[in-house]
Parts: sequence; structure tokens; C-alpha cells
Amino acid sequence: MSELLTPRKRNISFTSLGKEETIPLHNFWASTGYSAGTKKLQLTRRQSGARLNENAAEGLEELDELANYEDFHTIDWLREMSRNRLRHRQITQGLRKTFLQKIRILHDACSGWLVVLLIGMAAGTCAGIIDIATKWLITLKMGVCTDKFWLDQESCCWLHEDQNSKIDNDSCAEWRSWAEILGGHRGHGASDYAVNYTAYVIIAMMFSTLAAVLVKNFAPYACGSGIPEVKTILSGFIIRGYLGKWTLLIKSVTSPLAVGSNLSLGKEGPLVHIASCCGNVFAHLFPKYGQNEAKKREVLSAAAAAGVSVAFGVPIGGVLFSLEEVSYYFPMKTLWRSFFCALTAAFVLRSVNPYGTAHFAMFYVTYNRPWLLFELVPFALLGVMGGLYGAGFVRANLFWCRFRKNSKLGKFPILEVMVITLITVLLSYPNPFTRMDASTVINELVQECGPTSHTNLCDYNVTRHYHGLNTTFVPASPSGGLGDGLKTALWQLALAFLFKCIITVFTFGMKIPTGLFIPSLAVGALMGRIVGIGVEQLVYTFPDNPMWKTDCQFSNGQSCITPGLYAMVGAAAALGGVTRMTVSLVVVMYELTGGLQYIVPLMLATMFSKWVGDALSGEGIYDGHIRLNGYPYLEQKREFTHTTLAADVMRPRPGEPPLKVIVQEGMTIYDLEELVKSNTLNGFPVLISNDSQRLMGFVCRKDLIVALENAHNKPEVTEDSPTYFTLHCPASVSELGNSNPVRLFNIVDLSPIAVSDHAPMETVVEIFAKLGNRQVLVTHNGKLLGIITKKDVLRHIAELDGEDPEKIMFD
Amino acid sequence: MSELLTPRKRNISFTSLGKEETIPLHNFWASTGYSAGTKKLQLTRRQSGARLNENAAEGLEELDELANYEDFHTIDWLREMSRNRLRHRQITQGLRKTFLQKIRILHDACSGWLVVLLIGMAAGTCAGIIDIATKWLITLKMGVCTDKFWLDQESCCWLHEDQNSKIDNDSCAEWRSWAEILGGHRGHGASDYAVNYTAYVIIAMMFSTLAAVLVKNFAPYACGSGIPEVKTILSGFIIRGYLGKWTLLIKSVTSPLAVGSNLSLGKEGPLVHIASCCGNVFAHLFPKYGQNEAKKREVLSAAAAAGVSVAFGVPIGGVLFSLEEVSYYFPMKTLWRSFFCALTAAFVLRSVNPYGTAHFAMFYVTYNRPWLLFELVPFALLGVMGGLYGAGFVRANLFWCRFRKNSKLGKFPILEVMVITLITVLLSYPNPFTRMDASTVINELVQECGPTSHTNLCDYNVTRHYHGLNTTFVPASPSGGLGDGLKTALWQLALAFLFKCIITVFTFGMKIPTGLFIPSLAVGALMGRIVGIGVEQLVYTFPDNPMWKTDCQFSNGQSCITPGLYAMVGAAAALGGVTRMTVSLVVVMYELTGGLQYIVPLMLATMFSKWVGDALSGEGIYDGHIRLNGYPYLEQKREFTHTTLAADVMRPRPGEPPLKVIVQEGMTIYDLEELVKSNTLNGFPVLISNDSQRLMGFVCRKDLIVALENAHNKPEVTEDSPTYFTLHCPASVSELGNSNPVRLFNIVDLSPIAVSDHAPMETVVEIFAKLGNRQVLVTHNGKLLGIITKKDVLRHIAELDGEDPEKIMFD
Repeated sequence: MSELLTPRKRNISFTSLGKEETIPLHNFWASTGYSAGTKKLQLTRRQSGARLNENAAEGLEELDELANYEDFHTIDWLREMSRNRLRHRQITQGLRKTFLQKIRILHDACSGWLVVLLIGMAAGTCAGIIDIATKWLITLKMGVCTDKFWLDQESCCWLHEDQNSKIDNDSCAEWRSWAEILGGHRGHGASDYAVNYTAYVIIAMMFSTLAAVLVKNFAPYACGSGIPEVKTILSGFIIRGYLGKWTLLIKSVTSPLAVGSNLSLGKEGPLVHIASCCGNVFAHLFPKYGQNEAKKREVLSAAAAAGVSVAFGVPIGGVLFSLEEVSYYFPMKTLWRSFFCALTAAFVLRSVNPYGTAHFAMFYVTYNRPWLLFELVPFALLGVMGGLYGAGFVRANLFWCRFRKNSKLGKFPILEVMVITLITVLLSYPNPFTRMDASTVINELVQECGPTSHTNLCDYNVTRHYHGLNTTFVPASPSGGLGDGLKTALWQLALAFLFKCIITVFTFGMKIPTGLFIPSLAVGALMGRIVGIGVEQLVYTFPDNPMWKTDCQFSNGQSCITPGLYAMVGAAAALGGVTRMTVSLVVVMYELTGGLQYIVPLMLATMFSKWVGDALSGEGIYDGHIRLNGYPYLEQKREFTHTTLAADVMRPRPGEPPLKVIVQEGMTIYDLEELVKSNTLNGFPVLISNDSQRLMGFVCRKDLIVALENAHNKPEVTEDSPTYFTLHCPASVSELGNSNPVRLFNIVDLSPIAVSDHAPMETVVEIFAKLGNRQVLVTHNGKLLGIITKKDVLRHIAELDGEDPEKIMFD
Repeated sequence: MSELLTPRKRNISFTSLGKEETIPLHNFWASTGYSAGTKKLQLTRRQSGARLNENAAEGLEELDELANYEDFHTIDWLREMSRNRLRHRQITQGLRKTFLQKIRILHDACSGWLVVLLIGMAAGTCAGIIDIATKWLITLKMGVCTDKFWLDQESCCWLHEDQNSKIDNDSCAEWRSWAEILGGHRGHGASDYAVNYTAYVIIAMMFSTLAAVLVKNFAPYACGSGIPEVKTILSGFIIRGYLGKWTLLIKSVTSPLAVGSNLSLGKEGPLVHIASCCGNVFAHLFPKYGQNEAKKREVLSAAAAAGVSVAFGVPIGGVLFSLEEVSYYFPMKTLWRSFFCALTAAFVLRSVNPYGTAHFAMFYVTYNRPWLLFELVPFALLGVMGGLYGAGFVRANLFWCRFRKNSKLGKFPILEVMVITLITVLLSYPNPFTRMDASTVINELVQECGPTSHTNLCDYNVTRHYHGLNTTFVPASPSGGLGDGLKTALWQLALAFLFKCIITVFTFGMKIPTGLFIPSLAVGALMGRIVGIGVEQLVYTFPDNPMWKTDCQFSNGQSCITPGLYAMVGAAAALGGVTRMTVSLVVVMYELTGGLQYIVPLMLATMFSKWVGDALSGEGIYDGHIRLNGYPYLEQKREFTHTTLAADVMRPRPGEPPLKVIVQEGMTIYDLEELVKSNTLNGFPVLISNDSQRLMGFVCRKDLIVALENAHNKPEVTEDSPTYFTLHCPASVSELGNSNPVRLFNIVDLSPIAVSDHAPMETVVEIFAKLGNRQVLVTHNGKLLGIITKKDVLRHIAELDGEDPEKIMFD
């Protein structure tokens, strides 16, 4: 490092000031503009344009070098943004530009669009490949396509459809179950069942074990859903490698394996992580984004939007998810780029066409009947149930994860995955609603019963006759007493609901990619369908109740209740209860159903779900995991309501040793080195003198270390050389006696954010949350009293909430 | 005022501190918590809980009194938010609560939802009534429903449909034109045309004149679209009466009149203003919102969303419009409430059902054909054209408005409206595309041609035969050579386009409610339809071009081009060019068309439109009008790229007299009164002493005036009484000699936001934009140097942009 940053490169010699002064780039303007007045300043800037240009490239490198943050540190948004503006200025300044410079400006202006385009395309491609792989792996547990083994069941039968080999709705002669392959004949006997069961269990075990081994050995960060971490990273935290190439690769490979093993998890959360990895990888192609942590986060916000967009095929919902749930600083100008990114991703995914339909969305549903006013009661009830489920899940899962962390269990991640998989598959095979993969189940649950419905779910005890509507493909759905099939289905639904409720608690948080969207939606859809059938039977049994009498006619076996809609509402409620999403959830569901008229039930359920959930558990699953892992995430949505003051939070606390500070004149190189060695603080305030305690500026630890290294490389500098953090310092040896002075004015931030000791903490929290600075200095009438870092604020909040601050941070 | 605020009420006697000290509520915590440490502070608070409760209600009143801002002043967001937190604390504090207190807490928690519910319902109702009135007024120019004069043409004929009196598509025997009524017979002769023409002109003139008179005499603020002003108000500016009851009433009445007079304007922009008025009116029912300018703006954001929601029937688009275009501080937690408000409004509107369809949206379009890849070229072209139009419109309109302002024209608003109306209606009657109201025209232009289409727009020279699709209501559209009707229509389209382009420039900004959405959409739709027909003919003429040969078959008179889609894309491009909306525009158009597959053309056109527009005119029409009117709006989206420092912007400038300050001890009442009288500053920094110049706090002008009035009411206070801004002051006469000291510590803000003189202005601008404070104090090593207000920043930006700052501000 010291070789890269020789003193010559670090400073720009600026002759137009009239005397030879070395001033660094990042307070270059500070010194020229000082009390100069606007007019004069512009003049100066223009004069010095040519000179600066020469050094611009060098200076940029220097700054980038300085800007690297250490792992698990928070970034300084103000500094990053100002670095970006400086970079932009260096590119665009000067009056006459060469052709090359113009190209560079154009490239700079376009690179924002280019990077989101690339990310969108990459995310879409990844999602498409993952979708196809997942489908194949899911059906591989059941059987194999005999002539083309790389096809999943649907593609296999679709390919052979024209040869009239179709047997029933979703099977064909070419698709053979494991019993058929091993036994050689097609049958439905007990032995075949046993063979298929065994194959199912063994293959699922193989998938999940492979996934766990890959994650453990190649990319430990590829586990979990990734959303809590992406959220934390976007709030300005550095976790090296979390969005790296290896994580991208391993998570992309293991997600299909995990879903294929029929564990109660989804690939939608991981897709957000994968898209963010794509974002990070492509950001590094553009120095504007790759070398600036604040700008990179703009791109990552867009990537997260693309992730949800491809997960469900909902571009607008994706952007709103990124805005509401994931992103921290979401400048409005990135909204448009995020939208572009999400749409590109959805479009690329659609070209790969994994859902096999012309629609974007994952499950596209069309309902033919409007909902009735009295149904708002069961919808609200579903909301309450969703909230209860969500709160219960969050508490149970956090308890289990804490237990895993603190017990020996955490040491055997692969074994844990194997055990959970074994339990899951053994119990899930017998029940069709758990044997199928969760997306298929959800898709089936949210559909209306129509004349072509042949599942148990639509087995009603009525003669089916449909009155003709004026369109051919819009049939009305049957209703009536429960048929035997539906009775069986109800039992299966209830068992599946219970099973999923419990197993998901143990699944989420294992050391494989575990998404939570699909399991939550599945639990909610199961719950909703049961409630829906209940309401339908209620209406059927008491047709004369005044609440629904006028709206419901049963003359031709018609019902006015759509259990599928209840499943949809229930799914929204459960997901809302678990994640506490609001607008984005409703918009996602709206995009899935494609009908504005169903937005009211969805909204009602989501509202109740959030209220009940918030009342019972206070935080969503992502925030819970952020807290569990002790990430320094300063929640913006929750208002700081306490009445403490900056003086109560700042370090040093009463009784602690005084703050480590730098005095602007007279400290020796040795003093500074001792200062750096004696602690791990991020930086040091600079005072005018120890007597006055007046604050003059702030020096970052990293800058100071680099500057000290540089000083050591100069032969004339000794340990006793005095240092000067002032603009003017004694120029030569003669004035000082025996040692050369070291000028360090260039590393001082002359305008650190400072507040009064009387400032209420609510203002300080707002400054941290909105300006994104790393620390705030506390002064009293201009005298330095202490310092507050972001982590101090988080500790303080934890303390006020009655938690032990040392225990929750990074344990 | 002085009667309301007696000294007893102003201060809370706080005995638990051990000595009799008067401490005001808003720095109450400051003084108790001062260097006390968290634990101790909590203890103190609990002890003093009972005492505080008694005074809470009084104190609240006091603070509200203090918080009134003057007209045309900016608000201090930090202070408002801290007042709100204090209010919240006062309601929720204390351990044991009475039933009444619990009710109060519940009411406080629910009031946010209640107020947006009420606003949504009110906005929906207003919009419904306005829609119905507008429809009636529009058709009243043509004729009248003979037996039920209060019905518009459509309702009239719909009501009489069953009596088989229908004549053609949209007329019936009961509906009679003015020529029929006056002449007594139904005919199409020249004299009838003349009578109808004359009636049309006279009625239109009456409408617009009435509207202008009403606006001028009863509510001058009801003119224009209102969006620039709502934007400015939401950014923290006070314009008294702008959102008042009179404005609401008059704008609601005059909007239909203005639209009814066939001027080139819409009621959609005004609806945003009307909804915001509803928001303001209902906010005053809840002290939490009505008496806190920051909280009120949260509600107004939701109201603006509801306005767009009802204007077009697009709730999600409305929320995004509010988020992207209108709102300034949009905390994420209000997103959910805005969404709720927008949805309620849309639902209420739908119950009133002004569009007569089951759909929410204003024009619901379904296209049957996908767009083809090569069409992206004409779509992009449309985007460029939209951008050109938008930039041209913005420049021309701003020029005209500036001319109106600076010339005698501005003195005759009613005459101006009459002249423009006369020109408009005289020229627009002969052309069917300008005679009809703009929404109907747009609706016709964006439709596909189908077998039931009978307009000139679908008159193609081919035998129409449609191949059967598998659904009955999805016909394919015809295409082929231009029929005579279409040729006529093309001429009419072109003339209508030119006419609308020109007349809208003169219409927008007149002293009646003038919305810009509909005229822009109309211009764009006309342009788009022309381009669409052009492309269609191109494809028809050269069917073998490889670009489209594979995708287009002409065997059965089918075309692969949908001119209606071009109209839709053109409409989006033109509106985008004028307003520079992006995401919200695409989402609105998506909600209108209801098909995700058309989002790509819309997005492409919007992108090109914005790029071209930004390159040519730099700002959208709303920002242009904000600048024209000199509102102090600090643009958040545009980054501050200059390199000036706080020292360059602060007052006093070099050569100006020194800053007016208060010294914490020793100034007399007379000194303070002279200080207040000598200037109009919003507040004064408090220094420890004139020698040290060290900053101790800040006092608001209003607080100081109230405090001085209070002091005057005390008999023992004379003009020579010394004032003390410190916590401790000499207690009695004896210590001071001949006059009583006045304690003013309670009005000092002990933690004003201060920056160093070296702070780059980019940071200062960010502090203003994000924290929303009113002023920033500038210090150098703890010494006060100057002050920067929001207006100073705006003046500075104007200066750097090469404009005369004194000319653009409030001229």
C-alpha cells in the first residue's frame, strides 16, 4: 500500500494559490473556496481546470484506495456521495473537450442504464435456468422421461402429446415412475407404492445432502434466504463475499436442489440474493459503481427489485418490495432504473418461458365472480389468522434459531439438513398436498372450480350443470354438499396445513438456501381454502340467511363463494404475517391475480394480518433475523420515541477514560502511531489545542495509517518529527530545530457532522438514518465532549428496549 | 395572544428539580436529562410523571400556538416532528392509565387511518359528482334530454333504450339537439348546423366566463392545475387558503364548467388539488394532523395519491405519482396509508360509477395482438416526438406565462378566458376530433378496429372477413388500403393535432382550473394514431419486407399493427414529455391497459420522451411553473454539483453588516425589541458573549415576540430589565440593582443544526433536503460566522445557474 501511495501521488501541487502548498483532492475545494465568495471561486476553478485534469486520474485512484472499508464495518454515505460527485466533476470539468473525453462523459452517463440492463438480463437468465432445473429435479423424485431424461414430466408429456400417448391429464407413456422403471410394468399396487416412496425419499435425501455439502464447503454465505443480509448490506454495512461470485454460483446450484428435495422452503427469497449477487458482480465492471459503496447500493436496490420480479413474475411488485422492504436509501432517481431492471429481468425470464404460459406471473388466476360484502368478515378473519400464524412462526423460528446457535446443533449443519429432510419426505409423501411441490399446491388451491376441474377439491355432491355465459371459456363453478373426494381433500388439507406450519419453523435458517415466501404462501393458501370451503358450506346449508340471500342463488348448483379466492387471500395474510410486507404484498398479489376488484379483500387481510402480527411479535422475520445475527441495522420505520439526549449516549460515558483525540499542532509521529495502536476506533477528532478543546476536524483511522506509512518512507522523517494538521505549518528544519515537520492537513475532514450535547437523540437518530454518516461528534458551545457512532446508537436503543446491548451485537 | 399566554400558562413549574425553576415543555427533557445518564433520566421522568400530566394539556395548547407559521414561510420539519413526538409522549406516558386515557391512546393510534379513510371517501365522492356534472355540461352544448333535462346524452338514451327509440349508436329520440328544439324538427341541413354551431359557441362562452368570474371573485387560488403549488406545499411551504374550503368548493364547481366549455384542458390535475383540499379540511378534524404542519403533509401526500387515483381510476399509479412527482418527505409508513386512501377513493368513485363500466379505469383497453419486435423503432420514435412536443410545450407555455405576468394581459383574466374560449370553440366545432371532449377522443383513438367499429378511423378498403378465434368477443381488426373515411379522418387528426398543440400553450395557466393531463394525452394520442396508421400502411404496402414478413400475414385482411396501441404509446410519450413523470406514468398506463405485455412499448416511449425532453428543456412543466412563481422549492432529484462551501453562501456576505445576534446575558428588553423591529429574520442565534462569539443556541422570532409580550404584561418588568437566556439567572432584584431580570431560557433551542464553514454546500443542501430544517448556522471552530436559510440556498443555486436570484424569487 505504501508503494502505491507515494507522497508525490497523494498530493496535488497547486501553484495558482501563489505559494507551493500541497492540498489533497478531497478537501481541495475546501481550501480554495475558503471565504472566497462565489464569483471568485468560479474564476479560480476555471483557471485551475487544466492543471487539475492532469492529476485527475491519479487522484481518483488515490481516493478509491482510501475508500476501501474493512469487513463488517459501516460505510459513510456522505463521504461516498461526495467522492462520487468529485469523480463526476473530474470527468465533466473543463470547457473544451477532446473526442475521447466526450466519449468518457457519455459512457459515464450511460453506465447506470447499462449496468441495470446487464443485471436484469443476468437475473432473468439465472431465474430461468433455476426454474427449469427445479422443475426437472422435482419430477425426478417421481420418475424419469425414458427417451429424454433431461426433460421434466410436463415437458416430456408435452413433447409426446402429438403421438397420442397421453394417459391422463398430466402423465404419458414416455414418463415412467421409478416403480415402472425398476419393476418394468405400470401398476398401482402396494409394492409399486413402496418402491416409489423409497425412491422419493432416497432422491430427496441425496439432493438436500448435496446442497448442504456444497454450501458448507464452497460458499457458507449461500445459506438462508439472504434477504436479512441484503437488507443490512443495503443499509450501509460491509459483508465481504456475501454477494460474491462463489455465493452466486453455489446458491444458484443449491437452490434447485433444496427445492427439489421437497423441504418446506422456496427459491424466491434466494432469487433476491442471487439477483443481488448479479448486481454486485456487474457493478464491478463499472468503476463508478464498483468502487463506490454508496453508488453500488443504488445498483443493488435495483437488483433486489429484479430478484422479486423474476421470483414471481411481478415487475411492479418487485420494485415496491425493494422500496418498502429491502432498500434503505432509495433515491427517487433509482426508482426508474429499478423498474427498468425489474422489467428487463421479467422479460428475459419470459423468453426462457419457464411457466409455459404467455403470462408473466407465477400463478395467474382469473376469477369470474365478484366477492360479496359479507365476505369481508371471513376475509378479515383470514387476516387475523395470518397474523397469528405469522407472529407464532416468527417467535418459534427465532427461538429455534437461537437454540441452534447456542447449542451443539449448530456444529452439525449437514446432519441437521439430513434429519429434517428425512422427516419431511417421510411424512409428506402420503399426502398429495405435501407430496407435490409447494408452488403446484398453491396454484391448485387458488383456482376456481370449473367444469374441467377434476381434482378432489372440486368434488361437490351436485349434478353439474352450467348456465351458458356469453363467453366460451368462462364457466361457472359448481357448489353444493361435500362430495367424498372433497371430504378426503379437507382432511388432507388440514393435515398438510399442520405439517407445513410445524416443519417450516425448523427448516428456515438451516444451512442451505431457504426461501420463506413459498412455504408461507402455501400455509396461507391451505388455511384459506379450508376457510373458503367452510364459508361455502355455511352459505349452502343456510341459503336463506339475509346476509347473502339476495346475492346468492342456488337454482343451478351455483355458489357465490369462490374458495380459490379465499386461498389467495389466506396466502397474502400468512405471508404478510410472517414478513410484515404491506403495499408490495398487495401489489404482488394484484399482479398475480390481475384484477383490481380483488384488491380490497387482499388489502383487508393484509392490514389485519399486520396489525395482529405487530401486536403479538413486534417484528417481521427479516428484522428478527437481523437482530438475531446482531447486524448494525438502524430501523428507519420505527420512530425513536425516547427522550434521551446526545450527552447521554456519547462516548466517553461518565467514568470512562477521555476520548482519544488529535491536537492540530505538536503531536509527533510516535504519538500518532501510539494513538492508532492503542485502540480500534474508526477515526479521531482533531482539536485546536488541549486547553480550548475546540473542535477543528476529524481524521479517519485508515487515512491516518496511510499517511503515517507515507511519512515513514521519507528519509528525513523520524519518530520525533512533529505533525501539523493545519493549513500552514513551519516550512523547514530551521524553524523547528532538529526534525522535519510532517504536514497532515490533507487528511483532515474539516466539516464533520457535529451536534450539541443538548440535541435530543431523536434528532441524532434522524441524522444517522437520513444522512448516513458514520459518526457524530458532540460539542458543547464549540468544545468537544464526545462522539456517537452508529453502533453506539444501536446499543443505546437496545438498552432502552431492555436488552443487553453487548449480547445482541455480533454475538 | 398575550391574553391567551399568561406567564402562568407558559411555563411549567417543576419542583422536583429541587429549586423553583421554570422550564418550558419543548426543552423540558433537555434540562432534566442534561448530563444525567440514561438510567437517572428515566427515574426522573417517572417521578415527575404525575406533575407533568396536569400541565400536559395546557402545554400542548401553548406549543400549538407557537407553531403557527406565517403565510409564505417555510416550516421546520425537525421541530414539527419533535413536537409530534412530545404530543405522543404526553398521551402515552404514565404507568397506570384511566379508561379515558386508554380511549385517547386508541383514538390517537386510529386517527391516522380514520383521516385517510375520510379523505378517500370525500375525494371519491367529489370526483364522482364532478364527473357526472362534467358529462352533463359537455353534452349540454350539443342538446338536451327533453323529458329529463338533468341527464347527459348517454344516460338519457340509456334510460330510454328499452322503448326502442334508439336512432343510431349514441343518440335517441328523447335527446334533441338545439336546432331540433329551436327549429322543431330533426334535420341535417346547413341552417341546423349553423344553429347548433351558434348554440355550442354561446354555451361554451357562458360556461368559461362563469368559471372565470367565480374563480376571480371567490377563490383566486382555484385557478391552474394546482399541482406545482401542492408540490411546493408538500415540500414544507405555507400558502394559507390554498387548500381551504372555498378553494375546494369553487374548484369543484368551476372544473366541470371549464371542461364543459371545450377548452383544451382537463379536470385531472385539478382533481389532485381538490383531493388535497379534502385532505387539508379533514386533517383539521384531528389535532394530531391539523395542528402539526409536518404530520399534515403526510396526510396531504395520501390525498394527492387519492386525487390521481380517482382522476384516472388507477390506485397504484396514484400512489406512485404521489411518491415520485408530488411528495417531498414521503416516509415509508405513509406509503401504506396512501395506498389505502387511494383505494378507498377509487372504490367510492366506482360506487358512484361515472364511467358506466365495471372497470375502475378511465379508458380500459384490451388489445388482442402482441406487438412485434420491429415496432420498437416506431415506438421509440413516438417517444422522441413526445419529448420534442413536451420540451416545446414547456418552453412555449413558460414564455407565454411570463409574458402574461409581466404585461397588461395579466390584468384582464376574465377577458383572456373569453377570448381563448371563443377562438377554441369557433375552431374546434367543425372538426369531430376537437368538437368532442378530449377524453372521448382519446378513448376512441386508443381502441382497436374491430368488426363492430363503425367510425371513420376503421374505414379500410378491404372486404372485412374475420377468421374465427376461439373466443367470441375477441375479433381481429381489419386492415388494408385507406378508405375514404380514413383519409378524411387522417386530415382531421392532423388538424386536430396541430390545433391542440397550439391552443394548449395559451390555455394552461389561465385563471380557471386547467389540468394538463388530458390535453397532453390527447395530443399524444392524435400523434400516435397518425404514426400508427402510417406504419400500418407501410407494412400493407411492402408486405414482403423481411422485418415483418414472417410475423404478418395479409391473407384475410388482417394486419399485425394496432394503431390504437400507437395512440396509447403516443399519449404516454407526450404526457411524459410534458411532466417528466416516469414510473408513475408507466404504471398508470399499465393500469389503464391492464396488460403487462404492453409495458415495454410504454416504457421505451417514456424513456425516450424523458431523455429528449430533459435534453431540450431541462425541467418539466410543474417545476417550470414552480420556478416561474418563485416558490422556494428545493429540488431533491437534481444533485447539487457545484463546489462552493458553506462560507460562500452564508449571510452576512463580505461587506454586509454583521449578523443580528442575541447575547445570552445582559441584553435588555429594549435591546431585544429593537432587534425584532429592525429586521424580518426568522430567528436569532444566541451567543455566550460578544467576545467569544461562541454559539449557544437559537431563538425563533415568533417565540421571542410572544415572550416579550408576556414580559410586558408583568408589572415589574421595564424596558431596562435585563434578559437571561441561561439556565440560571440572578433570582431577585437585590442582586441586580434596580430592575427585575427576565428569564428567557425556555425559548432557546439548545441544539440548532450547525455546520463548519468548510462544509461543502453539497452536504448543506443534503441536510436541508433530508432533515427539512429551516436554517443552518455556520461556525468556525465553535465560533459563529453566519447563517444559511433555505432561501439563501435557493438563491445560491439560481446564481450558480446564471439566473438573477432576486428576480426569480417571489416576483
